[in-house]
Amino acid sequence: MTPLLLSTLDLVGTFAFAISGATLGVRKRLDLFGVLTLAFAAATAGGIFRDLVIGAHPPAAFGDWRYLATAMAAGVVTFFGYEQVERVRNPVQMFDAVGLALFAVAGTSKALAFGIHPVGAVLLGMISGIGGGMARDLLVTEIPAVLQRRELYAVAALLGAVLLAIGSWLELPPAPTALVAAFACFVLRYLAIRRGWMLPVANWRDPSL
Amino acid sequence: MTPLLLSTLDLVGTFAFAISGATLGVRKRLDLFGVLTLAFAAATAGGIFRDLVIGAHPPAAFGDWRYLATAMAAGVVTFFGYEQVERVRNPVQMFDAVGLALFAVAGTSKALAFGIHPVGAVLLGMISGIGGGMARDLLVTEIPAVLQRRELYAVAALLGAVLLAIGSWLELPPAPTALVAAFACFVLRYLAIRRGWMLPVANWRDPSL
Amino acid sequence: MTPLLLSTLDLVGTFAFAISGATLGVRKRLDLFGVLTLAFAAATAGGIFRDLVIGAHPPAAFGDWRYLATAMAAGVVTFFGYEQVERVRNPVQMFDAVGLALFAVAGTSKALAFGIHPVGAVLLGMISGIGGGMARDLLVTEIPAVLQRRELYAVAALLGAVLLAIGSWLELPPAPTALVAAFACFVLRYLAIRRGWMLPVANWRDPSL
Repeated sequence: MTPLLLSTLDLVGTFAFAISGATLGVRKRLDLFGVLTLAFAAATAGGIFRDLVIGAHPPAAFGDWRYLATAMAAGVVTFFGYEQVERVRNPVQMFDAVGLALFAVAGTSKALAFGIHPVGAVLLGMISGIGGGMARDLLVTEIPAVLQRRELYAVAALLGAVLLAIGSWLELPPAPTALVAAFACFVLRYLAIRRGWMLPVANWRDPSL
Repeated sequence: MTPLLLSTLDLVGTFAFAISGATLGVRKRLDLFGVLTLAFAAATAGGIFRDLVIGAHPPAAFGDWRYLATAMAAGVVTFFGYEQVERVRNPVQMFDAVGLALFAVAGTSKALAFGIHPVGAVLLGMISGIGGGMARDLLVTEIPAVLQRRELYAVAALLGAVLLAIGSWLELPPAPTALVAAFACFVLRYLAIRRGWMLPVANWRDPSL
Repeated sequence: MTPLLLSTLDLVGTFAFAISGATLGVRKRLDLFGVLTLAFAAATAGGIFRDLVIGAHPPAAFGDWRYLATAMAAGVVTFFGYEQVERVRNPVQMFDAVGLALFAVAGTSKALAFGIHPVGAVLLGMISGIGGGMARDLLVTEIPAVLQRRELYAVAALLGAVLLAIGSWLELPPAPTALVAAFACFVLRYLAIRRGWMLPVANWRDPSL
């Protein structure tokens, strides 16, 4: 992939994640500032955490104004056109899956480039993908959706991260490796949504019920 | 401003923010340790986040014992004299506005000094001002007040941060610039409280109601 | 203490904390991924925060795969054997007190080694001990247990951290100092559980009741 294509896709992912944040903000009746904050948090929290852990100062969200601008654009669009955004919920979910795939793969790649052990890099790649959604939910005091029954969201991010790390370990060419890893993550997430694949919940009966 | 005046004002802001944290802790029936934790978090979380992002190790809250001591003093006073503190709620709100103004301006200034891009520095300055209050609310699982309808709190911090960054970009003398920026933030917050100025909420009707 | 013994005890603490996280995850009906996330967060969040503050990149939880492996093992055991784990609740509470003591002492020691001021180092040592439990509770949007009435949990961690810092300041031999500090923390926590020692709550009557 060319750098231009990569950075375009990265901003597409940022936009999709920001819309998921802004949407939740509107639904929770936050004011304009609250909606924009949720847009920014959903789009950038995973990457910020990764960059703090690997020691990349400042994190990209604070060093490159395009992330902020993209998240603000998504927030404003959602704030003033909420009902239209709700109507294209399915396309948004597809963009979100694209964002998940790109963030997980790019996050793993960045962590490896900073010399993090592959196990840690995979973990950080997965967190790059799912961290924004967790921050988004926690800011409005909801248990993060990704921790509850949801169609293989974290598992898809993990798959992309693992494939990237294996490809890097085998010294396969970086661009095709990243493409295949991201595609695998996207396909798994897509199929999981279509077919309702979920992880199990512990088989346990609450004695107080 | 002389360094002595600046650092005195900084500790005044710390004290005011710590009182807002401790007050919430008492109201939520936390124990003494919980009340002190909320005092410390409200006074320091914004600055800690900023320092982690810009790579200032350790953050001031852990490197300078006066922040901890000031926050603990505010926490103990509130714990043992809660009803008296509640009676001076209006003065506390004024101190809080002073703290907001100082933290936003000093935070922007510190981020610029660490070489952060002006857009990122403004964002970090604003977070320096509002981050403590967000941490305080999240620790007792309330949606941060600053994200909901509140009289131009984040906007005032943003105004101070933007003015400081513009002044710095124009190479105006630092001390008067900081003073004007902080004063503008304080005045906007003060007027917003007096007149009930708020940001809009999205105009949207919940179809399930 | 030999390094082998120290690192074994460190992993015992990790395992005990991870079980407390996974147990809460099962009770909250999280899916397998959610349960493993809570196990990891409970075991590592305090240390991650400390390492970010002192500038130790990457934090141990991401640089040493044994922490992840230990937390995952505890999570899987709890997920599939929840009812058995519940039955050994008392032993788990004892392991948790061991983990608290070790994390508080080792955390203070690491912060001092990174040149942090003793007051900041004690604070970071205490946070190393209690931070995981706070993250665990916040992830399922509960007010952290350590902030509410609980048998001298943070105070015990603080005692261990203070003793370690005093010993280090007096240049006492490191290994016996660490042992005594950890033992004091464990004993205080143990006695507090047995005898129900707690911190006070502010004496205040809610006028709206």
